[in-house]
Amino acid sequence: MKVTIIGLGLIGGSAAIDLRKSGLATHLTGVDISEANGAEAVKLGLVDAYESDGDSLSKSDLVIMAIPVNTLSALLPQVLDVTPPQCVVIDMGSTKGAICRSVAGHPNRGQFVACHPLAGTENSGPDSAFSGLFRNKVNIICEQDKSSPSSMRLAEKVFEALGMKSIFMEPEEHDKHVAYVSHLSHVSSFLLGQTVLDIEKDEKNIFNLASSGFASTVRLAKSSPDMWAPIFEQNAEYLGQALAEYIMHLQRFQYLLMKKNTKELHKMLAEANKIRPVLEGITAQHASRSLAPSL
Amino acid sequence: MKVTIIGLGLIGGSAAIDLRKSGLATHLTGVDISEANGAEAVKLGLVDAYESDGDSLSKSDLVIMAIPVNTLSALLPQVLDVTPPQCVVIDMGSTKGAICRSVAGHPNRGQFVACHPLAGTENSGPDSAFSGLFRNKVNIICEQDKSSPSSMRLAEKVFEALGMKSIFMEPEEHDKHVAYVSHLSHVSSFLLGQTVLDIEKDEKNIFNLASSGFASTVRLAKSSPDMWAPIFEQNAEYLGQALAEYIMHLQRFQYLLMKKNTKELHKMLAEANKIRPVLEGITAQHASRSLAPSL
Repeated sequence: MKVTIIGLGLIGGSAAIDLRKSGLATHLTGVDISEANGAEAVKLGLVDAYESDGDSLSKSDLVIMAIPVNTLSALLPQVLDVTPPQCVVIDMGSTKGAICRSVAGHPNRGQFVACHPLAGTENSGPDSAFSGLFRNKVNIICEQDKSSPSSMRLAEKVFEALGMKSIFMEPEEHDKHVAYVSHLSHVSSFLLGQTVLDIEKDEKNIFNLASSGFASTVRLAKSSPDMWAPIFEQNAEYLGQALAEYIMHLQRFQYLLMKKNTKELHKMLAEANKIRPVLEGITAQHASRSLAPSL
Repeated sequence: MKVTIIGLGLIGGSAAIDLRKSGLATHLTGVDISEANGAEAVKLGLVDAYESDGDSLSKSDLVIMAIPVNTLSALLPQVLDVTPPQCVVIDMGSTKGAICRSVAGHPNRGQFVACHPLAGTENSGPDSAFSGLFRNKVNIICEQDKSSPSSMRLAEKVFEALGMKSIFMEPEEHDKHVAYVSHLSHVSSFLLGQTVLDIEKDEKNIFNLASSGFASTVRLAKSSPDMWAPIFEQNAEYLGQALAEYIMHLQRFQYLLMKKNTKELHKMLAEANKIRPVLEGITAQHASRSLAPSL
């Protein structure tokens, strides 16, 4: 199968590796606005050829779009214009409302499968791509009823080759949930990084003092602004709500701290502790033992 | 050397393991208000004996205090009252101002070494202890001039046995820096966990949607409230300042989001990106290549 990957970064590059490994992709062409990225992707063997103009689209069986969401929703209708009727186009953007709306009335809407693999790292660029990035990760498919049955069948083969488990949601539902569970994490991490950099003018000091706790909390602050600024913009409404609630909780904490109300502070922290069993995928009742105080 | 460990959790237990391994500790007694923790620590071989009352203190060469900071500053003067003159007392609390003040006029102040090892995980209790927790970590020593030279010599052997690199700070300086680099990370993580739990009533949903980014940002929200509520209380002034700045940055972000000012948002994210070279301990100039956008 002839595959074109638009966007040769962490996501596109990692998809390329595993699509080739699975045997699904027999020839891979990479499209990227950066010639340097294109040359590197060819050198790393992620794709067989690089092109800047997208000539290969008219000869592809599968197109994967892994570019920032603003460019993605602008480019997607044009991609559907030029791909042949049997070709399936899959996007991997972190927002779904704006992207689905961009092709809502498109005559070739059936060829498109809207998806969001919940996978990534804080690194970017072709050299950050690796095999297994998507393995056992959740993939959210939106508006599956607007994709043709044959497009869905091919897309499922792709997701299977990448090792993902698919779940289904409507675009608005998707955007609301990921605002809380993914986008807010990124904002809190970016701004934690900025707050510390603002205060600790002596970088050596941060490096010395930053214990592993800080490093993990602030890890996402290393993420690419070119990718994340458009995501935040496209999901501004739900992210704004999530941020308002987060700020409200922080302000309540600050008030309790000022009032030296340690009992209520303790209660807030114990409430937050309930995230442990949730993350471990077990019920809160079974996990109460591991929440016992350490002293 | 006879060693008494007060507090048989992650910190005290891990110190016990490596002090025994190094040969420095020949007999270890554990003190803990929880009998269950005491029994478990003996069973795990962290200590040779458990006692609830602290009888061993009068026969110890070294006492390590690894308990919540409120109990620590309350108990420390009493420990210095009963330990013999050659015994050295080391605390491992995450605040230093209140702890140092608690023994400021104590006749045995010279026997005490105030320290804060920047090491830990989100887990607590004797079964979370492990060898190597402190290896290559930074240890902050405060008011070293108030510890006697012989106390400092023994303490340095202890820190060497644990594999830590020591740096020196005054208590207020310590409390200010860790407010930003450690305590604020914990607050942001606890409250991120709470915000998501508040909204996502369906825990299955969080589990499905929480990609690895969320898990790392919210990891510290699993930390023990019994340990952290007293830390926040003792460091309320500096943590309050750090929180105020963090909230200010979040509100500015929210404003830019509302105004759809993607250019300024992008600038904020790019500023935060500067945390990457800092965390990697290299200068920003050398790292510019790895900050290149992914597309």
